[in-house]
Amino acid sequence: MIDIQPVLNGDRLALSRLLSQIENDTEIGQEALAKLFLHGGKAQLIGITGAPGTGKSSLVNQIAYHYRHPADGGQPMRLAIVAVDPSSPFSGGAVLGDRIRMNALIGDAGVFIRSMASRGSLGGLAKTTAGVVQAFDAAGFDVILIETVGAGQAEVDIARLAHTTIVVEAPGLGDDIQAIKAGILEIADILVVNKADRPGLEQTERALKNMLQLAHPGRRVFQNLGYSEKENGSQENEPIWLPPILRTIATDATGIPELLSSISAHRHHLEKTGDLARRDRARLASELDIMIESALITRWRNRLPDGAYRTMLNRLVARKLSPHQAAQELIRTEVQS
Amino acid sequence: MIDIQPVLNGDRLALSRLLSQIENDTEIGQEALAKLFLHGGKAQLIGITGAPGTGKSSLVNQIAYHYRHPADGGQPMRLAIVAVDPSSPFSGGAVLGDRIRMNALIGDAGVFIRSMASRGSLGGLAKTTAGVVQAFDAAGFDVILIETVGAGQAEVDIARLAHTTIVVEAPGLGDDIQAIKAGILEIADILVVNKADRPGLEQTERALKNMLQLAHPGRRVFQNLGYSEKENGSQENEPIWLPPILRTIATDATGIPELLSSISAHRHHLEKTGDLARRDRARLASELDIMIESALITRWRNRLPDGAYRTMLNRLVARKLSPHQAAQELIRTEVQS
Repeated sequence: MIDIQPVLNGDRLALSRLLSQIENDTEIGQEALAKLFLHGGKAQLIGITGAPGTGKSSLVNQIAYHYRHPADGGQPMRLAIVAVDPSSPFSGGAVLGDRIRMNALIGDAGVFIRSMASRGSLGGLAKTTAGVVQAFDAAGFDVILIETVGAGQAEVDIARLAHTTIVVEAPGLGDDIQAIKAGILEIADILVVNKADRPGLEQTERALKNMLQLAHPGRRVFQNLGYSEKENGSQENEPIWLPPILRTIATDATGIPELLSSISAHRHHLEKTGDLARRDRARLASELDIMIESALITRWRNRLPDGAYRTMLNRLVARKLSPHQAAQELIRTEVQS
Repeated sequence: MIDIQPVLNGDRLALSRLLSQIENDTEIGQEALAKLFLHGGKAQLIGITGAPGTGKSSLVNQIAYHYRHPADGGQPMRLAIVAVDPSSPFSGGAVLGDRIRMNALIGDAGVFIRSMASRGSLGGLAKTTAGVVQAFDAAGFDVILIETVGAGQAEVDIARLAHTTIVVEAPGLGDDIQAIKAGILEIADILVVNKADRPGLEQTERALKNMLQLAHPGRRVFQNLGYSEKENGSQENEPIWLPPILRTIATDATGIPELLSSISAHRHHLEKTGDLARRDRARLASELDIMIESALITRWRNRLPDGAYRTMLNRLVARKLSPHQAAQELIRTEVQS
């Protein structure tokens, strides 16, 4: 039986050790999460995602610094940063290791930075990230920044953990940027054009505006494994959130106060419309789906007779049957055993 | 009963219709795939992946053109291009639609271009892409180019479909490029620095070389749901493939003949060492895993009593239990029904 009280009390070493257990998906980690989850639900979750080269890490750095040093002289927020590295799906470890960065924040007891590595299995990263976020939430952090690189399905899943999702762009990143944005725009609550002192700013902003119009702003459908529900649309006269497009230069903090105001405005919008509760529900549904997938696969694998997979793969390689047929036979094997 | 003979005979309209069935994962599509699979296994599968802004699409264009117009005056290859767009996970459709591009190839009866859209579910894109590749293979295309954007888990899964995986970079894309490459480098057989006339070329090449050394070249472990096997390493004196780093400028075809030579050399390496068979096996295992995941989820959902998911989600939202506990209870529900 793991004692979660030190984590709830804010013991950094206990938290750090627990995060490793969660990342390695140990039984201790699972047991602790089950307990910690009941203490959570209070933190504000902010996702920051975008393509490489947008200066996203510098932006996270600035957001964190401004939450720690409020311009109005108010109480600094306790803040956690979860940086999701697209590390190897094969080696199971972080190639780069925990990055040393955020110099202004190092040594600040109100800040906790955690770099995540992919853990091999499909959906593994989204699952462990959800666990790490839950641990920070239960440990009493006011704000949790979740930074993801790229725009793959895993990143989208992780972005869905957040209450407010910020999508970062930069001028002049080339043609493919159009393709990337098609998927990611629909999860954006706030759009940031960072490196706003670079040539091509207006062009990037115009492209974003055009794509926003295509993306049906203010309307989102969450598709879950079990059922679907609309986040908006139930009430006719509900105010609709139109994602603002902001300019920042993270290297000299230009536009950061405006970005924080926008995050705050989005938070108020979520509370006022009831979207906060709906979004929390959708987020938990998404976490539940990931857990169900993982549990189904684990159960199936544990029940599979020795050698059944290898035998089926041999038949597949010999093209005696199709992958679909092979999968159907293999999951029938499980049921009979 | 669907008649696959027109597809096997090279009827483009029949193929096009079938691809839609496969993308929509219909019963007709599944039935056709089960039959087509038995006719496949002959095509050369080449994956091309990289971050936005690297000019990857232009490179695909050039590779295709050179396969259609061989420098040695030989027989042109029949060639299919599968372009995987990171489209919306919510809307279930392509936002941008099929891109009009590859002007030099349009109207060429020996070329078939298909843009893929994400189909919502986790692993859905990798699954339908595998199906589309199998259909092209059975339809007699000699070479299938699979183009993916970004470096998420889904892209890595798709890249694993290929015999030869080309990872595209470009000079001066910023700091985050380091993080992206950590994961993608391990799946690279050939590295291309495109836009080689841009400043920062040597720096990018140096960074790639350094990371290649970290990535343990020539050694790959494929982790499957059922078991693991090493691709290399069984024989002591086997030649090891060191991914070359090539320079290209896709806009004026610089370096494309060298790239095609390198693809050809890698193919010969795979054949000589037996890696071709091992890689085919790993690829089929990966497709099988995706099918198993999908089949497990579908079966679970079909057996779930009405309202069970919603009731459990309500308890989860009220924080009466953890996602892990909720998932365990939900998969037990299935077993008892």
